Amino acid sequence: MIDPPSLVDQYCHGVLRTELGLGTFEAQLARSEGPPAPGTTLFDTQTGFAVRRWCPPLLGLEPHCPPARYLARRRELGAAETGRRLLRASGITTYLVDTGLPGDLTGTAELGTVGAAEAHEIVRLEQLAEQVADTSGTVESFLANLAESVYGAAAHAIAFTSIAFTSVAGIRQGPALASQPPGPGEVRGAAARWLAARRVGDELRDPVLLRHLLWIAVASGRPLQLHAGPGAPGTRPGATDPALLGGFVRATAGLGTDLVLLHGYPDHRHAARLAGVYPHVYVDSGAALARTGAGAATVLAEVLELAPFGKILFSSGAQGLPELHVVGARLFREALARVLGGWVAEGAWALDDARRVAAMIASGNAGRVYGLE
Amino acid sequence: MIDPPSLVDQYCHGVLRTELGLGTFEAQLARSEGPPAPGTTLFDTQTGFAVRRWCPPLLGLEPHCPPARYLARRRELGAAETGRRLLRASGITTYLVDTGLPGDLTGTAELGTVGAAEAHEIVRLEQLAEQVADTSGTVESFLANLAESVYGAAAHAIAFTSIAFTSVAGIRQGPALASQPPGPGEVRGAAARWLAARRVGDELRDPVLLRHLLWIAVASGRPLQLHAGPGAPGTRPGATDPALLGGFVRATAGLGTDLVLLHGYPDHRHAARLAGVYPHVYVDSGAALARTGAGAATVLAEVLELAPFGKILFSSGAQGLPELHVVGARLFREALARVLGGWVAEGAWALDDARRVAAMIASGNAGRVYGLE
Amino acid sequence: MIDPPSLVDQYCHGVLRTELGLGTFEAQLARSEGPPAPGTTLFDTQTGFAVRRWCPPLLGLEPHCPPARYLARRRELGAAETGRRLLRASGITTYLVDTGLPGDLTGTAELGTVGAAEAHEIVRLEQLAEQVADTSGTVESFLANLAESVYGAAAHAIAFTSIAFTSVAGIRQGPALASQPPGPGEVRGAAARWLAARRVGDELRDPVLLRHLLWIAVASGRPLQLHAGPGAPGTRPGATDPALLGGFVRATAGLGTDLVLLHGYPDHRHAARLAGVYPHVYVDSGAALARTGAGAATVLAEVLELAPFGKILFSSGAQGLPELHVVGARLFREALARVLGGWVAEGAWALDDARRVAAMIASGNAGRVYGLE
Repeated sequence: MIDPPSLVDQYCHGVLRTELGLGTFEAQLARSEGPPAPGTTLFDTQTGFAVRRWCPPLLGLEPHCPPARYLARRRELGAAETGRRLLRASGITTYLVDTGLPGDLTGTAELGTVGAAEAHEIVRLEQLAEQVADTSGTVESFLANLAESVYGAAAHAIAFTSIAFTSVAGIRQGPALASQPPGPGEVRGAAARWLAARRVGDELRDPVLLRHLLWIAVASGRPLQLHAGPGAPGTRPGATDPALLGGFVRATAGLGTDLVLLHGYPDHRHAARLAGVYPHVYVDSGAALARTGAGAATVLAEVLELAPFGKILFSSGAQGLPELHVVGARLFREALARVLGGWVAEGAWALDDARRVAAMIASGNAGRVYGLE
Repeated sequence: MIDPPSLVDQYCHGVLRTELGLGTFEAQLARSEGPPAPGTTLFDTQTGFAVRRWCPPLLGLEPHCPPARYLARRRELGAAETGRRLLRASGITTYLVDTGLPGDLTGTAELGTVGAAEAHEIVRLEQLAEQVADTSGTVESFLANLAESVYGAAAHAIAFTSIAFTSVAGIRQGPALASQPPGPGEVRGAAARWLAARRVGDELRDPVLLRHLLWIAVASGRPLQLHAGPGAPGTRPGATDPALLGGFVRATAGLGTDLVLLHGYPDHRHAARLAGVYPHVYVDSGAALARTGAGAATVLAEVLELAPFGKILFSSGAQGLPELHVVGARLFREALARVLGGWVAEGAWALDDARRVAAMIASGNAGRVYGLE
Repeated sequence: MIDPPSLVDQYCHGVLRTELGLGTFEAQLARSEGPPAPGTTLFDTQTGFAVRRWCPPLLGLEPHCPPARYLARRRELGAAETGRRLLRASGITTYLVDTGLPGDLTGTAELGTVGAAEAHEIVRLEQLAEQVADTSGTVESFLANLAESVYGAAAHAIAFTSIAFTSVAGIRQGPALASQPPGPGEVRGAAARWLAARRVGDELRDPVLLRHLLWIAVASGRPLQLHAGPGAPGTRPGATDPALLGGFVRATAGLGTDLVLLHGYPDHRHAARLAGVYPHVYVDSGAALARTGAGAATVLAEVLELAPFGKILFSSGAQGLPELHVVGARLFREALARVLGGWVAEGAWALDDARRVAAMIASGNAGRVYGLE
């Protein structure tokens, strides 16, 4: 009854090109610090159960078949054919791909080809800065090249993304990240110190440079995706939530650059609220769904409480396994149909409105924000 | 099956006296910073959909009719007749009205007349202090008049309300707001600085004076309504939640003055918890419902998790549009019937208890706390 | 369809040995500061309604009968017989008992006998330290005895528990609690100051000693249960949430000691997330259920969103009244059946998986973590 014809996955990564065993596959099912606890498996998670529900039938097996059987079938087909079958069954017609992760992952164009879909690159600001540092000899050339790289990337990238607010450095900097760009002297000093101390390949963790980078990106005018949740395992868990973004959000209001808040769960209601208060703020509704599985409809309904419907975007947040693109897309469609369909059945929403809103969240809003087509 | 006979709206504002066009009407549907983002409309929100569901039939139109048609009908009837029809269909029999907002809004008595209901004034502390400052020549007279005004207001006002905990000043002051009244010297110094710097009409943002004001109000013994959520758009969003109130709540325990926490969403579970821990703390369950629309039953059920049922109050939180009073009341009744009715159907609650609790939340608790009738 | 055969209650207290009147019984239904507000009763809470639903039939009365009738029947049977009937009907086969609370409560072995169940002692670190202080003459002997007592307790206790993160002292210390054990000089100084100032019976509130105690417990290797919610009424409400634990959790990763987060509600989603990120972190899913009553299924489903199913443990969190053990157990079973059964009915989970996960949460995970049997 409510089933949007196409999906724009506004934030995902490529898939692994290598063949996977049971253990290497399992390790991709969650972002955890270290291996599963003794006596437990990451297949016993909402994501694991969702993969077992949706993916086996796409490879000719029964839903919920044991992981070992699924992995055997996957190896039989090979990683390439598995990826082709899964991605093409996802219903995703456009991928926006963050290419800033390490590992033998398919790039943007390759993901599009495998999935028979459009694909556009999202540039990760921290990675861009690290690449510039690897090839710049002096502070002057680093800063000049950095600005040039961001502006250059803005010409071809569909968006920028940054983990500044969920990284250790970002958290230490705290509210200061919020207010305004650092001054030129401050930036020069920070760059000098960072360049002097770093070795090729080191990550950018200097808070002044992170802040500088965010503000250059804002000036470029491309949409800026901000990781807004409790952060990757390397960071102090729970120390960040969308509230910390408040100052940055206020400072960037009216500048003409859209901010898209990613990964807000479990503070997604706060992220949704920001999208309601600030015209330039959008909120992702997808990535949490693949992680909460059978609970996805609850989470989606919570995002829909306060965020204006024109400000909500879908993503799979998938990384490494094409199974995660499938699961993100299926859970989203199913949750959308259940939540909006339920409201129509109660008379709270009109069916036409529900269909229109579903299409907006699935693809229309992303099309407008990113200027697709 | 569960339908309380009358509603006391324990926190709302008046309605606009002027005729409204599509744009001016839309602007009242949300509290956002600036106009809707390009390509979006505030009608595409839970509040917008709820207005389109409940209000057109009260003006003789189909539910969910297009906004332009509804606005045309509204202009045909005129603002006064629209207000009369809507408010009288809301089921609200008593309004407690915060008159501290600017704009051409109906006052307390007028709202009662239009709505054929009782109406009582809630005095906003910040506004009271600003009025006193406008008419006091010296620090001494300001402080004396301030105390006199608060005590004077206590004689006729049904309650006081304050936005100290969600205002920029309140946030800067942070936990210090919590502990105890500022000393006389501190208050005199703050008053002298504020009065010297201010021009007529300036808002009160001095944290010492805000604190002073809260404690005078506590001493008056009238119920004190505290805005406890993430704050109005002008404040740092998300920086406040009911947790920040903790110190003030503790410091005022046992003094004989009741605190009513307003606008806790999305931290309403924390607000509800405070109502469970402290005998003098009450929690509003209504204002969030009008903003979360089809999701209202979820939010109401969450407030009902931890707050004792004798500590929960209804409000519409409506401002500017009589449509918002209607929507607040209808969503509340519907959510209450669904949530409590569901628990009765499962055998978790007895029907008699459910009816009794519904009447308490709808009007009984407010009657007791505010001494109505 | 989904009904685990046995329950391990991984965190509870003993029951009162004294006969209770209406008022003394009511006072046990919630952890609040002071008596109920005028015109309200703690029977009008989710816990009160749940007790009235589940317990009267176990004593031969109608469900939902009036409190006075239930209390009369209870006195007729006597506290001992009431306890026997209720605990044996709870379905709990093993109790882990925190004996660190004051009051005339049954001890570990006695609770097991009354309930015809296994019972094991949980040692509360703060109480242990206070007992050592009561009997140690010098700083040297205190510190030596403290270490010896913790290691001694580790030989017989099933786990340690600490309220350091929700106590006033813990909150003041804040993130510093997180990072690393205090140095020997710091510990000696804190012990000297605390011992000099304290009188027999005084509580441990020194943040350095609390930190020292946590790290000794970690070194013992027994599971360490941490109170992780907004804290008991004596503390600044809402100032703590599982996020504050972040640093301690990170610092203890890989040391071989499991942490079990208790009482996370209303921040249980954050606690569940930590259990997903860190192999050594587990999350309690039970104690909140007895407090949220008819809303228990919602809360349980939220814990199941992000916590791996092998990391979730049941508890009643009961204290004082055997009614609370019953209510904790019944609400848990019912919520589990409804939530997992619903997911099976939708096709999201396989029935076999649901039964397996139910048994894991009800008893299997606790058996593994605490080394039961």
